[in-house]
Amino acid sequence: MNKILRVDTRTGNIRFVKPTEEEMHEGGRSFIANHLMREVDPGCDPLGRKNHLIIATGLLGDTNLTTAGRLSIGGKSPLTGGVKESNVGGLVGRRMGRMGIKAVILEDVPESSKCYVLVVKNDSAVLVEKPELKWMEASPTIKVLKEEYGEKVGVLCIGPAGEYKLGAAVVATTDHTGLQLRTAGRGGLGAVMGAKGVKAVVFDDAGAKPDTLADPEAFKAAVREVAAIIKADPKTDNRHEFGTPAVLGTCNAIGILPTRNFSSGSFELADEINGDKVAELIVSRGGEGKRGLPCVMGCMIQCSNIFPDPEGKAHVASLQYENIALLGSNCGIGDIDEIAILNDLANEVGIDAIDGGAAVGIAMEAGLLEFGDSEGAKDLLRQVGQGTPFGRIIGSGAVATGKVLGITRIPATKGQAMPAYDPRSLKGIGVTYAMSPMGADHTAGNTLETVKYLDPRGTEGQVAISYRLQVRGALLDSFGVCLFLRPAFVKDPELAARLLNARYGWTLTYRDVQKMFIDCLNVEREFNEKAGIDSNKCDIPEFMREEPLPPFNTVFDVSKAEMDAIWDVKIQEDIF
Amino acid sequence: MNKILRVDTRTGNIRFVKPTEEEMHEGGRSFIANHLMREVDPGCDPLGRKNHLIIATGLLGDTNLTTAGRLSIGGKSPLTGGVKESNVGGLVGRRMGRMGIKAVILEDVPESSKCYVLVVKNDSAVLVEKPELKWMEASPTIKVLKEEYGEKVGVLCIGPAGEYKLGAAVVATTDHTGLQLRTAGRGGLGAVMGAKGVKAVVFDDAGAKPDTLADPEAFKAAVREVAAIIKADPKTDNRHEFGTPAVLGTCNAIGILPTRNFSSGSFELADEINGDKVAELIVSRGGEGKRGLPCVMGCMIQCSNIFPDPEGKAHVASLQYENIALLGSNCGIGDIDEIAILNDLANEVGIDAIDGGAAVGIAMEAGLLEFGDSEGAKDLLRQVGQGTPFGRIIGSGAVATGKVLGITRIPATKGQAMPAYDPRSLKGIGVTYAMSPMGADHTAGNTLETVKYLDPRGTEGQVAISYRLQVRGALLDSFGVCLFLRPAFVKDPELAARLLNARYGWTLTYRDVQKMFIDCLNVEREFNEKAGIDSNKCDIPEFMREEPLPPFNTVFDVSKAEMDAIWDVKIQEDIF
Repeated sequence: MNKILRVDTRTGNIRFVKPTEEEMHEGGRSFIANHLMREVDPGCDPLGRKNHLIIATGLLGDTNLTTAGRLSIGGKSPLTGGVKESNVGGLVGRRMGRMGIKAVILEDVPESSKCYVLVVKNDSAVLVEKPELKWMEASPTIKVLKEEYGEKVGVLCIGPAGEYKLGAAVVATTDHTGLQLRTAGRGGLGAVMGAKGVKAVVFDDAGAKPDTLADPEAFKAAVREVAAIIKADPKTDNRHEFGTPAVLGTCNAIGILPTRNFSSGSFELADEINGDKVAELIVSRGGEGKRGLPCVMGCMIQCSNIFPDPEGKAHVASLQYENIALLGSNCGIGDIDEIAILNDLANEVGIDAIDGGAAVGIAMEAGLLEFGDSEGAKDLLRQVGQGTPFGRIIGSGAVATGKVLGITRIPATKGQAMPAYDPRSLKGIGVTYAMSPMGADHTAGNTLETVKYLDPRGTEGQVAISYRLQVRGALLDSFGVCLFLRPAFVKDPELAARLLNARYGWTLTYRDVQKMFIDCLNVEREFNEKAGIDSNKCDIPEFMREEPLPPFNTVFDVSKAEMDAIWDVKIQEDIF
Repeated sequence: MNKILRVDTRTGNIRFVKPTEEEMHEGGRSFIANHLMREVDPGCDPLGRKNHLIIATGLLGDTNLTTAGRLSIGGKSPLTGGVKESNVGGLVGRRMGRMGIKAVILEDVPESSKCYVLVVKNDSAVLVEKPELKWMEASPTIKVLKEEYGEKVGVLCIGPAGEYKLGAAVVATTDHTGLQLRTAGRGGLGAVMGAKGVKAVVFDDAGAKPDTLADPEAFKAAVREVAAIIKADPKTDNRHEFGTPAVLGTCNAIGILPTRNFSSGSFELADEINGDKVAELIVSRGGEGKRGLPCVMGCMIQCSNIFPDPEGKAHVASLQYENIALLGSNCGIGDIDEIAILNDLANEVGIDAIDGGAAVGIAMEAGLLEFGDSEGAKDLLRQVGQGTPFGRIIGSGAVATGKVLGITRIPATKGQAMPAYDPRSLKGIGVTYAMSPMGADHTAGNTLETVKYLDPRGTEGQVAISYRLQVRGALLDSFGVCLFLRPAFVKDPELAARLLNARYGWTLTYRDVQKMFIDCLNVEREFNEKAGIDSNKCDIPEFMREEPLPPFNTVFDVSKAEMDAIWDVKIQEDIF
């Protein structure tokens, strides 16, 4: 990981530079946070000349550790106005890792509207104008580029939503088979890419010679230990068989499944859209349907799927819990095929299914279409791709949609829609939504895993657990690994240090590693503060503090004062 | 002024309460600021249950001081997210003053959508449901209510934009003749009124006995002195003859006339839309056209007009400079009749011509219609009233429009569009836009009057003069008088104290009065801080610091650090 690629999208200047010693200790999310603080004016316009789009591999992104290769995309977010890291699987992380590219940084914006493709090879990179790709959806874009540059390349691209610079626009990519369309969904980074006139980035690692490990034996031992713990964890089998949709039933039962714009925490049609149903249909329909697929090569959990239509043709891949909830129950839609079509549409036009689903739910609450109207919802998502006024509203995400439509029940914090966990009955995640520098983001610190030992509807202990999980999330997102790797580090926190030490020849303890990511959060908080995101803005929306959520009639009642003190909570140093 | 009317729009509870001693010392803008701080959670949703809509008369609103009777409408702004006072002429201020009503406060929101009219009489008030007024434009609404409650009543109402709760929605009213439609335009207070389900407020002062003055002779003397100074001021005659459009020529000459979404400070068709042209057409067309009209009874300046169409039928009244600029040159439209039609449309659907004009200019920059396309602009304003998606975008104001359409050149601060003075060549008003608790608001501290002795394109002294004018603006808006009364107080600051003392029996010096309004600004700033408007958000948009403005190729270059120190500037105590 000895190269950073810097691309000036205005002048066309492209150069590889060597990372500094400081940068060598950063990866993925922590690279993004520190790079923004070093080089990007926190007050800048996210779509303007001063913002950077950062594509960064994790610290362990070039290793064979299971799940390694997940990619971080970041910049100042047009949605939150603050720091943003959005994490995605697929092939690109590995391709970058093999080429030793720690990060690609897109700077400035072109003087006039452009449709560039950035082609990155082992020791060269070039910006190519490809106006024929303009307004193209994600899959065809990737297809065209693979035809030109080879089936083995990794591709990142934006859909029309990114070109329209919509606040909920994503950066899309595929796995190594090309069958899954995956997105770095949160925070509108597709709009930042669109502002830079870059439709796609192609990574071709032919001829690359990956770095060697500082201590291959020690690394192999640590990797083996991680694998053994993950294999023994009972969640692994469940994830492999049912994927993330497995939690839908749990969320419905504990009353946190977003339903009809967060007006209920349980959905009467939950059984029609849960993990069992998804798995059952994949098996019974057969055809192109598959489950137990990896999103990054070498993942042993393999929780992804290809969801087939009744004829066995691929509907969407991968169909994930959060998308089912936001596009489904949250819109009053209980038909999993309709949800799959909606998810596919969101992916293709290039908007976040979470913020997009929340936006459609708000439009339904505003009476512009009925809850449950899947045809209307499809029409709205198609309009996003067509750039109609209504489409642009939806594509701008939940907060913009609520504002324009005069709706006060907007399930969002810091400008970003809440994912599929209503915080009124899972209070710890509410603390994360309110306080995380990322805004409402389940991957920033999801307390769903704590419900076995902490009452999710009680306020006790939620602030402390949120902080601990936020640090852990920063670590995993900086390592370039999946959040599902956490059981390994929970069981043996020192593994985190052993992996880094064996990869880089460092001599860190787990305490050092933990401090690295407490520091990462602090840098992110500092960037947000300088960006003008006041701590008074760090709260759960008013309606969730007032309106009881069925079926348990909870409100969000962790006090603002207790949340404000989160950063003073003492984290135990020896637990993950 | 011994009554405050409190109306709970949820329970229907209505009661008159006596102002406290503290409240007796507040009026108009200062009443709004202090009331918000006392009773409204700064973090609340502007369209939610906790916000108040405040209709407040000025401290001298019930006197015969020339221009007195202007009205303040306020609350937490859906546009800026902070404190807001929007000032309007017309009949209501006087009606309230005669009834001794210091303020009407609308609280909470109804459980379901309502279309109430609040009817305020001398000693009673009642909420009446009038669903037949729903979605009605402003003029017909007022007409219907005058037919029912009498020609002499004062009426405030919202158009459909307020009912849709759009961010740029206004509160409209008329003068005593009913010919002028005037709006409390800035900050989206019409949306707050809409959220409260109140379509209109009728003020019938029959039987009212106005307060007596504490010292009628002293008051009469002070009033006479004010009148003499205003009469002698050369600007008065000019204002009477040409109205506010008189400054268009000046603004064009010094290069601050917003043109094609603030991309130039001068407009090639300025002569077609300036004050001379407006006056000439009023005279030559005759018919219903008139100039030299008062907006409040008893005003001696009388700068308003009724602008006639070529057949002499009233087009719009009153046609003002800011509206001509934002709907005209800023949209590349140089036909004064088309501009008048646009202004009338904005008034009737009930959106701010400034924020609405800026929004249309942004839509033009985004390529959704061409600069100069007045038919397209009319269509957009009509769509605001119809509640189409595009209409709702425009009606949500410039910032929402820019965000949804992916435009970075948004001429706004704190969420509110800049009025008709580009700050790159009038730097003092830029300081006001950036630092005023009101956001971009020319009435908060317009330095156009200083260009004779302070280089408007230089940075020297602009921060200090902005602060001084901001204090002055707070004073005038709290007195319930017009900004054009300032020459009287500039000439003799003690007049301000003498008027208050004679009205209320107080013993203030001018220094005391000045301190009252420094305090008012401080309360407003504190409210904004608690609302989460960080000082980092107090700046001029990025593009104005980077993109030179023709014809003088200026950028805005007052440093952020110098602006941040504004509240530490020592204001001379003996000047107004």
